[in-house]
Amino acid sequence: MIVVLKAGVAPAEEKAVIEEIERLGYRAHVMHGVSRTVIGAIGDENTHASLESLNAWPQVENVTPVQKRYKLVSREAHPEDSHFRVGKDTIVGGREIIIMAGPCSVESEKQLMVTAERVAAAGAKVLRGGAFKPRTSPYEFQGLGEQGLKLLAKAREATGLAVITELLSEDHVNMVAEYTDIIQIGARNAQNFQLLVAAAKTGKPILLKRGLSMKIEEWLLAAEYILAHGNRQVMLCERGIRTFETYTRNTLDLAAVPIAKKESHLPVVIDPSQGGGRADLVGALCKGAIAMGADSLLIEVHPNPKEAWSDAAQQLSLDGFEKLMKELKPLIAAVGRV
Amino acid sequence: MIVVLKAGVAPAEEKAVIEEIERLGYRAHVMHGVSRTVIGAIGDENTHASLESLNAWPQVENVTPVQKRYKLVSREAHPEDSHFRVGKDTIVGGREIIIMAGPCSVESEKQLMVTAERVAAAGAKVLRGGAFKPRTSPYEFQGLGEQGLKLLAKAREATGLAVITELLSEDHVNMVAEYTDIIQIGARNAQNFQLLVAAAKTGKPILLKRGLSMKIEEWLLAAEYILAHGNRQVMLCERGIRTFETYTRNTLDLAAVPIAKKESHLPVVIDPSQGGGRADLVGALCKGAIAMGADSLLIEVHPNPKEAWSDAAQQLSLDGFEKLMKELKPLIAAVGRV
Amino acid sequence: MIVVLKAGVAPAEEKAVIEEIERLGYRAHVMHGVSRTVIGAIGDENTHASLESLNAWPQVENVTPVQKRYKLVSREAHPEDSHFRVGKDTIVGGREIIIMAGPCSVESEKQLMVTAERVAAAGAKVLRGGAFKPRTSPYEFQGLGEQGLKLLAKAREATGLAVITELLSEDHVNMVAEYTDIIQIGARNAQNFQLLVAAAKTGKPILLKRGLSMKIEEWLLAAEYILAHGNRQVMLCERGIRTFETYTRNTLDLAAVPIAKKESHLPVVIDPSQGGGRADLVGALCKGAIAMGADSLLIEVHPNPKEAWSDAAQQLSLDGFEKLMKELKPLIAAVGRV
Amino acid sequence: MIVVLKAGVAPAEEKAVIEEIERLGYRAHVMHGVSRTVIGAIGDENTHASLESLNAWPQVENVTPVQKRYKLVSREAHPEDSHFRVGKDTIVGGREIIIMAGPCSVESEKQLMVTAERVAAAGAKVLRGGAFKPRTSPYEFQGLGEQGLKLLAKAREATGLAVITELLSEDHVNMVAEYTDIIQIGARNAQNFQLLVAAAKTGKPILLKRGLSMKIEEWLLAAEYILAHGNRQVMLCERGIRTFETYTRNTLDLAAVPIAKKESHLPVVIDPSQGGGRADLVGALCKGAIAMGADSLLIEVHPNPKEAWSDAAQQLSLDGFEKLMKELKPLIAAVGRV
Repeated sequence: MIVVLKAGVAPAEEKAVIEEIERLGYRAHVMHGVSRTVIGAIGDENTHASLESLNAWPQVENVTPVQKRYKLVSREAHPEDSHFRVGKDTIVGGREIIIMAGPCSVESEKQLMVTAERVAAAGAKVLRGGAFKPRTSPYEFQGLGEQGLKLLAKAREATGLAVITELLSEDHVNMVAEYTDIIQIGARNAQNFQLLVAAAKTGKPILLKRGLSMKIEEWLLAAEYILAHGNRQVMLCERGIRTFETYTRNTLDLAAVPIAKKESHLPVVIDPSQGGGRADLVGALCKGAIAMGADSLLIEVHPNPKEAWSDAAQQLSLDGFEKLMKELKPLIAAVGRV
Repeated sequence: MIVVLKAGVAPAEEKAVIEEIERLGYRAHVMHGVSRTVIGAIGDENTHASLESLNAWPQVENVTPVQKRYKLVSREAHPEDSHFRVGKDTIVGGREIIIMAGPCSVESEKQLMVTAERVAAAGAKVLRGGAFKPRTSPYEFQGLGEQGLKLLAKAREATGLAVITELLSEDHVNMVAEYTDIIQIGARNAQNFQLLVAAAKTGKPILLKRGLSMKIEEWLLAAEYILAHGNRQVMLCERGIRTFETYTRNTLDLAAVPIAKKESHLPVVIDPSQGGGRADLVGALCKGAIAMGADSLLIEVHPNPKEAWSDAAQQLSLDGFEKLMKELKPLIAAVGRV
Repeated sequence: MIVVLKAGVAPAEEKAVIEEIERLGYRAHVMHGVSRTVIGAIGDENTHASLESLNAWPQVENVTPVQKRYKLVSREAHPEDSHFRVGKDTIVGGREIIIMAGPCSVESEKQLMVTAERVAAAGAKVLRGGAFKPRTSPYEFQGLGEQGLKLLAKAREATGLAVITELLSEDHVNMVAEYTDIIQIGARNAQNFQLLVAAAKTGKPILLKRGLSMKIEEWLLAAEYILAHGNRQVMLCERGIRTFETYTRNTLDLAAVPIAKKESHLPVVIDPSQGGGRADLVGALCKGAIAMGADSLLIEVHPNPKEAWSDAAQQLSLDGFEKLMKELKPLIAAVGRV
Repeated sequence: MIVVLKAGVAPAEEKAVIEEIERLGYRAHVMHGVSRTVIGAIGDENTHASLESLNAWPQVENVTPVQKRYKLVSREAHPEDSHFRVGKDTIVGGREIIIMAGPCSVESEKQLMVTAERVAAAGAKVLRGGAFKPRTSPYEFQGLGEQGLKLLAKAREATGLAVITELLSEDHVNMVAEYTDIIQIGARNAQNFQLLVAAAKTGKPILLKRGLSMKIEEWLLAAEYILAHGNRQVMLCERGIRTFETYTRNTLDLAAVPIAKKESHLPVVIDPSQGGGRADLVGALCKGAIAMGADSLLIEVHPNPKEAWSDAAQQLSLDGFEKLMKELKPLIAAVGRV
């Protein structure tokens, strides 16, 4: 860590800082500059106590860590791209760009089966569908619950698609893990650390959405919780951050794709449906995501978006999805993927 | 709801929208304007199905609700200020500005008891202290757990202070409720709706922090979850939102005080410690909060901030807290409170 | 416009609103709903006075315009894509994706000439280079001024590239217009309306950067200032908005490309250098921009980024630029452009 | 400056960085840590060339300045509070809290004179009023121009109030300076450095608004432009920053008051009208500003807000202003000011 002292600090105050640094097991290295004194604290920041409490000392201007705070998720720790199987034979993180598609919410058997068949035929490998829905208002549709999970399992059986669904509660962790191939942690729960740990322990692959105002570093640290609890099968999913712009529901931070892939070995997924909140933007956002290196796309598709029970404005129709899949082909080829 | 059609929509497309509005139980009222057609959908938005799915219709430009989405928390539903007892005889939401103070984390019996005695002597009515800590990194101190709760209970017994502590997990809800007087829901869990419902059912007063990028409407809707599950004893706590500014850890949105009090009947609490992330700003932020109508302050105080195990930079010392309490007196009087 | 009244408004208060609406030349259309009254004000919002002053009336909850505020820039007004010539024979807004490249600042004849020759050879059509630099601090390098403009003109002569440079001051407008082919309005001046009007009057093509916290609607309205003053040759340039994320200098809002192209007929340019603030992200951001429909890229290139006088971290080397141009080829082909 | 190298950098690459640091006139001080090497560059950052270009070196992880970038505005350079005269005998920055009030736009002689008389009678010392208005749309009212300035001068004569008005263009600088006592630089021009310099040279006191997404450091550096051009009479005005919240037009960052007063010696002004965009919040925001140490308030007041030509929703009526002035008295006394 690097500790910068305020201008004009007395020698005794400087000495006190040095003693504290050494008390915590670091070696202090002092540099007297022109207007400020800087102290390097040499020692492993991941095994020694943090020096951030020095921020509370009146003679200290600031304390800056030098090492990255994440370990297991970092590219330094694992230079190769991670890849792993989801469902029977789909590999995420490999050369193939994996398309996950399906309705925002599971609404009925018919709605789900029709969607599953059509998205499978169009090339999707994973079926998405919410059985438990986190809704801003308590008066909105909250999902079909276990009945929805059963329909997802049925659609898997019929189509061979793997299944992804959101886990909202520690109380549901066993139930959800029983039915799903991938556990989704939603943006609102991205720093619900207890839920992350509970999900990790199922051993299932996990798709971790970035929170609405989460820095990339925090997102990687949330993933670190999962790896630190023994589950290395994590996908990082960018789904838009909250800004002042109002033409879109969120601002999809596509730069997060190359950054996450540089900092980490984990596969990166883009959610263009939540990311823009508008069906008419989904196509362009998918294309951008592929061009920038995303490993997978998570797309909302509904047999009749006009009557969807949630997020109607951002769901593609079945025909719209088929058309999009065709449009993506040349781009996928252009970036050397399949 | 108000439905605006796109320019140049054909009569048949307009008719289809009208039929959908009527199918969902509203009465449609059409206005043909100069360049757009606007359709008012007349009917109770809280009992009829939402028309937001019309956003997915190609001929529709936008759909705007007319009614507020929250009911039980709204000032319309309950014109008087809400107030309720916390602990033995402290009333939150009345004329008295209630000071809650204590360490970020419970670290040891000595640390907590010293703090409790001093903050009580200085005028605090509630003791804060984290037993379960939501930490960005899995390698940071996660709290003492139940041992911390026991220490809080012991401090309550010794001082008569009520106790507030954070609930992180549905699995802990009974344990936390057993020891605490107020359940705190942290910013990262502000839209963890399962946790809100579990906390609501304990019947304990709940302090609900606003999430880092939560709109005020969403914060009120999160409170609505608690009231809708039968618990009306909710305090709204503003603790800073995330912006681009870096001199402060967060931007404390003090305008949220008068807005929350105008929209809702619930008491409003300000957390100046998280709000700025800097001990040297706590005093000014407390003064602003009082001047603007806050009912309560939640202040981090530590016997030795320099050695705090978490959030050292934002905790006041015991002397600093005492001094602050004296400085607040004339302001409290100036706004006609005690 | 649509005027929503508060709940429980008395008939006389409603009547007063109706009279004001009619006084301003609109026809009022009243809808009594379940809990609110909504009044449609029918009339052309672009020729009648605004009703927004009704927001100040106590009985009014809100006023919402129905029409778009921009006209000349809108796709409705001009359904075809705009395209126009810059320099001798380069068309912006056509099928060809135009690459603009060059140093952040013009530093010396050698630096500029070497860069111009190499970027021209690699396929760029426009040379960028700042002669007047808007610097956050008064103590930073402010540009070579007219000498820089002369060097740009010399480089144009030597290479045939068109030239783009930033206009900072109304006082420089004639001088800058004399030397440059495209006038750049920077993010910090995006709502400096006097400068926009002065630039418009030169008749030169104008590249208008989006401000750091500008909504897309405001950006289009700033462009409207230029068109309303008789200059239709405007390019809209997205260069990153300011958010809380710190891994990047700005968050490049790539969704702005499809939105701007849907709302407006003007060509859209992406600046991946400012957009991320990191040379290692420029390649990925260029690819995303092309995939999402950008008409042009504005890329910072320097013969020796390590010694650049400004923005060193985000400039590509000459070799880096050449390599990037090759990498972009398959993507450009994949989206059907050249 | 502090230069952190990447993990695993070869000795030759480290040596190259050291040589560059020394080439630019700093002394290099190397610390080999556990996983990273840190190099302190000792020397005055304000007189030596910046090392930020090292950010472009592949072996460098980051470069952090140690010194503050602003000098003349800093509290270090000028430990006492600055204060100066505006108009005939009003001192800004002293013990008295100076109230500036008046309409958003000057609309007519009657409107301005009535307002001036009433705000003077209620205790305001400065009359505000826009003669040149920066409007988002070219089709909105742009101000009365010089006629508006003449009306302001007339109101000054009649009431003895000092006058503040916004400068929008370098072309108007002499004209505006002739009529006004204080030159206002608006939020949209806060980094229009040419305008800052032109305003500085008039020798008039300047009120510098913070830009909508300006960091406090950038705001202070914009003020530094004015001081560096020989004008020390600068007031810093916070007027709200742009966030995702929609209940308010902007988020007033009241923490900017204590921070600006800690970092700088300049007086700090709060604009509660722009800051919230709602007349019903102005009172609460004024109270917060006073409690937190603001030296002055800039309040929009209109004889008939319902018919204002701009920003109707945020202007107080004359009665409302009088009432507010009375309510502020006890708070002003409570903070020991007059």
